[in-house]
Amino acid sequence: MGSIVTTAQEARLLCRHNQLTNTAGRAPGYLQANLLVLPARYASDFHNLCLRNPVPCPLLGMTAVPGNPSAIRPAKCIRSKDFDIRTDFPKYRVYSEGKYVESRRDLLDVWTNDHVGFLIGCSFSFEDALIAAGLPPRHQKTHTIVAMYRSTIPLLPAGIFTGGCCIVSMRPYRPEQIERVRQITRAYISTHGEPVAWGWEGAKQLGIDDVEKPDFGEPQQFEEGEVPVFWACGVTPQLAVEAAGKKIDGLVFSHEPGHMLVTDWTAEDLQKLQPESV
Amino acid sequence: MGSIVTTAQEARLLCRHNQLTNTAGRAPGYLQANLLVLPARYASDFHNLCLRNPVPCPLLGMTAVPGNPSAIRPAKCIRSKDFDIRTDFPKYRVYSEGKYVESRRDLLDVWTNDHVGFLIGCSFSFEDALIAAGLPPRHQKTHTIVAMYRSTIPLLPAGIFTGGCCIVSMRPYRPEQIERVRQITRAYISTHGEPVAWGWEGAKQLGIDDVEKPDFGEPQQFEEGEVPVFWACGVTPQLAVEAAGKKIDGLVFSHEPGHMLVTDWTAEDLQKLQPESV
Repeated sequence: MGSIVTTAQEARLLCRHNQLTNTAGRAPGYLQANLLVLPARYASDFHNLCLRNPVPCPLLGMTAVPGNPSAIRPAKCIRSKDFDIRTDFPKYRVYSEGKYVESRRDLLDVWTNDHVGFLIGCSFSFEDALIAAGLPPRHQKTHTIVAMYRSTIPLLPAGIFTGGCCIVSMRPYRPEQIERVRQITRAYISTHGEPVAWGWEGAKQLGIDDVEKPDFGEPQQFEEGEVPVFWACGVTPQLAVEAAGKKIDGLVFSHEPGHMLVTDWTAEDLQKLQPESV
Repeated sequence: MGSIVTTAQEARLLCRHNQLTNTAGRAPGYLQANLLVLPARYASDFHNLCLRNPVPCPLLGMTAVPGNPSAIRPAKCIRSKDFDIRTDFPKYRVYSEGKYVESRRDLLDVWTNDHVGFLIGCSFSFEDALIAAGLPPRHQKTHTIVAMYRSTIPLLPAGIFTGGCCIVSMRPYRPEQIERVRQITRAYISTHGEPVAWGWEGAKQLGIDDVEKPDFGEPQQFEEGEVPVFWACGVTPQLAVEAAGKKIDGLVFSHEPGHMLVTDWTAEDLQKLQPESV
């Protein structure tokens, strides 16, 4: 697959036919989405969890009717009629009682008439903007996985989803770059937006004692004078679902990390994702 | 003023003419709003603060154009053309450099062509629902001011608004009542929604060592076996603005506590206040 994918629908169809296995850098300008699929009776609680915690859990869209894998609302999120949430991600994960069971290329055999899917914003979007501004995230330069940490910021509870915390990702920058980095990512309000904390003092406030030891991903190299800058991270909702564990009766699905859905939302649409006209 | 006010517009006009000085219990069924008015150049940061922290800072509406005190968006928030944000609250407060200066009956002399007003959801709405369910908040029974505390939940920063924390209000309930109390208030997603923490363990998690010593309001009586239940509180945005202090050049206005605006939103509209159709 050396060819350049230009449209979101083209990328989705390649994923469906397993000709595209990693969506990083594909269909630039289009927002990519994380996935969470739950039995319908937990959908309202999970929806509330997203609305109450929009920075770590930014909701880009959801399936319109339980069991229907093709219709997404808002309709602008996926404009094509030819869509299937069970196949159009490159790779999926299956969970039972909060535990990872297996990875799959599609959900055709496991999806039921009772499943509801949620599409959640991912940080790929603002990383493109940082690169364009000459402030590339370290992990992209070193080809490592971004460092992620459990923070002490509580996830505000919603129904069965209690006791979770905000997961944060970290990118090193020099102190004099921070205001610019804040400004650039601020606009990406539906994909985590501006940082939640920064500097060594910020790390302490988040309860992170040792940035060398991330809870997920890989440690990041600091260059002379750099300090950590933390953003809310899209792994948060996935861990909230894992934390709910046995409270969820029935199978739960997610995307495989790094294997996102390319949506039809563009960065320019972001402002429209704000509450109605407020 | 012994007469019963039935419509929101009727209540607003009485406030305008200073014939109604306390909006508690007036125009039942209509959502009441807190006020924050800022110079236009800080409006975008404050708007982001609300969008990033919708549980403590739920945005019900805002003025549509800087300097125009009459047009609110979304239009459904205030349906009447005969509206003036400078007069239709019963009482206002004026702040300079984060400090309280004076209280006023209107803002006519101090409002400028550069001011933008924000209407923020208030807990009166869900308290009505708790009363209707036979679970009245203690402070209503004892005619005291609800107990409020600074919590360790950080307010996720937005532009000049950094370093704030979520203020919480507390109402005592018995442990076996908590699930019902959560359920009732959950629906009120645009007026703080369900509790953020509960029980003595919850108090500890919020960094509240002594519930007998609230930071604002009055201590609440606990009856045998009762535990504290905490909700995010509408005082939060006001304190975030106070914390910004000298970073804000120009006068800031708020409502006088307890002296809210009666909006045209009803409890039934709440679901529509969720992001577009997601």
